[in-house]
Order: sequence, then C-alpha cells, then structure tokens
Amino acid sequence: MNYKVVVSYDGTAFEGYQVQKEKRTVQKEIEDALFKLYTHEVKIHSAGRTDKGVHALGQVFNYYEEKEIDLYKIKKAMNTFLPKDIAVVSVETVPDDFHARGSARSKEYLYKLNMGTFNPLERNYVYQHGYKLDVKKLKEASKVFLGTHDYKNFCTTEEDEKKTFVRTISKIEIKQDGDILTFRFIGTGFLRYMVRMIIGSLIAYAQGKVEIDHLKFSLSEECKHRTMYKVPSEGLYLVKVNYK
Amino acid sequence: MNYKVVVSYDGTAFEGYQVQKEKRTVQKEIEDALFKLYTHEVKIHSAGRTDKGVHALGQVFNYYEEKEIDLYKIKKAMNTFLPKDIAVVSVETVPDDFHARGSARSKEYLYKLNMGTFNPLERNYVYQHGYKLDVKKLKEASKVFLGTHDYKNFCTTEEDEKKTFVRTISKIEIKQDGDILTFRFIGTGFLRYMVRMIIGSLIAYAQGKVEIDHLKFSLSEECKHRTMYKVPSEGLYLVKVNYK
Repeated sequence: MNYKVVVSYDGTAFEGYQVQKEKRTVQKEIEDALFKLYTHEVKIHSAGRTDKGVHALGQVFNYYEEKEIDLYKIKKAMNTFLPKDIAVVSVETVPDDFHARGSARSKEYLYKLNMGTFNPLERNYVYQHGYKLDVKKLKEASKVFLGTHDYKNFCTTEEDEKKTFVRTISKIEIKQDGDILTFRFIGTGFLRYMVRMIIGSLIAYAQGKVEIDHLKFSLSEECKHRTMYKVPSEGLYLVKVNYK
Repeated sequence: MNYKVVVSYDGTAFEGYQVQKEKRTVQKEIEDALFKLYTHEVKIHSAGRTDKGVHALGQVFNYYEEKEIDLYKIKKAMNTFLPKDIAVVSVETVPDDFHARGSARSKEYLYKLNMGTFNPLERNYVYQHGYKLDVKKLKEASKVFLGTHDYKNFCTTEEDEKKTFVRTISKIEIKQDGDILTFRFIGTGFLRYMVRMIIGSLIAYAQGKVEIDHLKFSLSEECKHRTMYKVPSEGLYLVKVNYK
C-alpha cells in the first residue's frame, strides 16, 4: 500500500528537512515516528526539502508499507509519536505510482515580512525587516520573475548537479496588511533558496540598489553571477503541494 | 528622572516574570540590560507579573535614574542588550509619582484558543484546545463575570496575602474567526490565574460540566472552593496597561 501524508511543522528547531547524521531534522523525526508505529524501518519520499528555519503548512510525503492500519489510527499514532513541532494533517492511500515529488504539479510558498517595529513574538515566523518598502515597486519587479525562466542565478551552488534550472512561476502575489507583507508564490517547482533570492532581489529593487534591467539580465543566459540578495529563512512557509 | 518603558515579549522560554534565583525571567533580563546600559544596578517596578509561558504585547515598568540619556538611545541600547524574545516598544519620561503598578487604571488581556486541528506553528501562542465550543454559551456565561466581584475563588492560593480580592471587569469580548477564538478582558486588575480560571469556567459551562448557577455561586461569599478549571498559559497575552 502506498500512503500519502500531509504534515505541518514549525521549522525553528530543525536543522532542515533531510536526514543528516546527529542533527535534528524533520525527515528523521517522521521516520522515527513511523518506526515506532510499524516496529521496522520505513523510508519516506518527500515532495521537497525545506531549509533550516523554514516552516510547512502542507509538506507531503509518501511511503510504501505492506502492513495495513486504519488511516485514522495512523494519523493518531503518528501525532502521538511525533514531537510537538510536527503534526500530521492527513493520511490517505494513493495508487502505487504516486510519488510525492514526481507526481507534484505545482507548489505554493508564502513569505511573511514585517516592515514595522521588531516583534519578539513573531521573530521566528515573520522576517523582521524593520523598514518600510514601496509595495508598488515590489509588485512592479515581481512581474520580471513571472513565467518560464532559467533560474540558475537564483539558487545555491549546491544545486549545480541539477540538469535544468528552468522553472515556471505562475503566480506572485504581494499583499500588505499594515506593516506585514505577504508574498505568495505558485510554480512548477522551486530551486533551493529560489523564493528567498527572488524576494531579496525585489527588495533590492524597491530600495534602489538595482535596476529592473539588472533583474531581467540576471535571468538571462549571459549573466554568470548568482544574485547576492536573499531574505532569511524564518519568513518562509511551504503552504501546499498540488497534484493532478 | 523617572522612566516609563513599554516592552513586548515571547513568554515561551521564560520561567515567568519576577526575578528568581538561577531562573531565566523577564525582569532579570531587563535588569541585566539596564546594568549594561548604566553600568550600575537599576531596580525596575513593573505593572504586574506574567506567569511562565504568558506573553506580553505591552507590559510596562518604570525605573528611577539620575544619569540622563536620550530616550531614543535608551530604546536602541536596550534592544541591543536584550535577548531576541524581549523588545522595548517605547521609552518616555514621566512625573516622579508615576508608578507602573500603582498608577495603572486598567489592564487588557487577550486569550487565543484553537478549536480545530493541532497547529504545531502556533502551539506556544494559541491554546490548542482541539474541540468545537458553543460560542453562544461562552458569551452567555461571560456575563456572570462582568462587573465588580470578589474573585477569591478565581486565583492561586499564593494570592492569600492579598487584602482584597475584589476586582472590576468592565469588558469580556469573545470573537470567533474560523476555528480561532479570541477572548478580550479589560478590568481594574487581575489576580494570578484569574483570566485563565474564568475562561476555564466558561468552557466548563459550554461543555455542560457546570451550570450557570454554579458559576454565580463561585463568585459568592458562601462558596469556599477555588475553581478547578484553568486554561493553559500559552494562549494568554498582557496587551496593554492603561494610565490616566
């Protein structure tokens, strides 16, 4: 049986997603909980990794398991075994060919930024930028990144093994509620740091540090330099992974 | 010079407010920061204590200090010296007879409760109740607590040294936004655990565990039993202290 699981987590106390020796990661905690449930090792396949400090409202993974347990019981048991900063939102059975990463059609990310006074209560959940930004300019620059582009200059060098850096962003929405800005991205996929580097670049433009033409140039083949702008991880949320 | 300071803090990692040996408390961190600023000990007088896990958006304290420093610089220096989970919101000079506790006219508290699925991202900021509540019943019972009453049965025994338990609650507002309930209390003052015990009692009524008459009785002189209901600390926020 192939199980699809949606989880949410607070990324604050994790050293990222993927299992790394001696480090507290989301994947490790999930696999430990599944080990307790099934009393044998279970390998999970995730829709994507999230970096240290990045949160998830709807991360998805799947796992294959012969032993059949009632879906409600799997959810309940997992939530008992998991630490308080991870929660199972839903469990369902899916066809054998479903793969959390491979079957994903698009992903949705949110980024929250505070332009006002430092808020200690939200320091791990909203980037405390602390300066006013021209929202019109942010929106103007965001149009540069819409559509299909080669995002090689908007990801970490660790992505170098990837075959292609071409991704399609179908939506970038920027909403203001008082001092809080919320950026919403929907796209076919996102490279490591891509959302954070794009937002960093929008801010650089709004602050007069770069021109629109420079942003366009960094998306072109001629540009051989990675962007130097990147907002911190704590404002980022993997909201949803969409499947067929 | 008498200084009035407003601070906000995330109560999660504090063992409460008041200085206790070997424990991380809000008052201790503030006095440590003031020591760094003035290079001598400074005693602060706070509007009130908050318990372990309780947050503040507008806690107030005052302190007397001869050395004159520009208000903006005090704020900036304090925010440099303070840990990330406390922030100075404002600093002003006040008449010598101003006392953060004694001069307070009223206080405002918020309490946040989630009736829906456990949310790991808000586990330290919203009480994860996890069950639907009849909001009409909560509102109905809240009227019992409005006005001037003797709240001896709605506080910890540690308050026994107090001369009077009579307090006036001028407002109890309950708002629903999806699965999130927000309780707002305004009153002349609140005993330790008072807000949490009142909300616990409102919930007990909504769940059919007690009758309205029982709630009324627990506010009467004849009742010699403290309430056994209390919601946890993480949903509670000291929002504001009002002065003349």
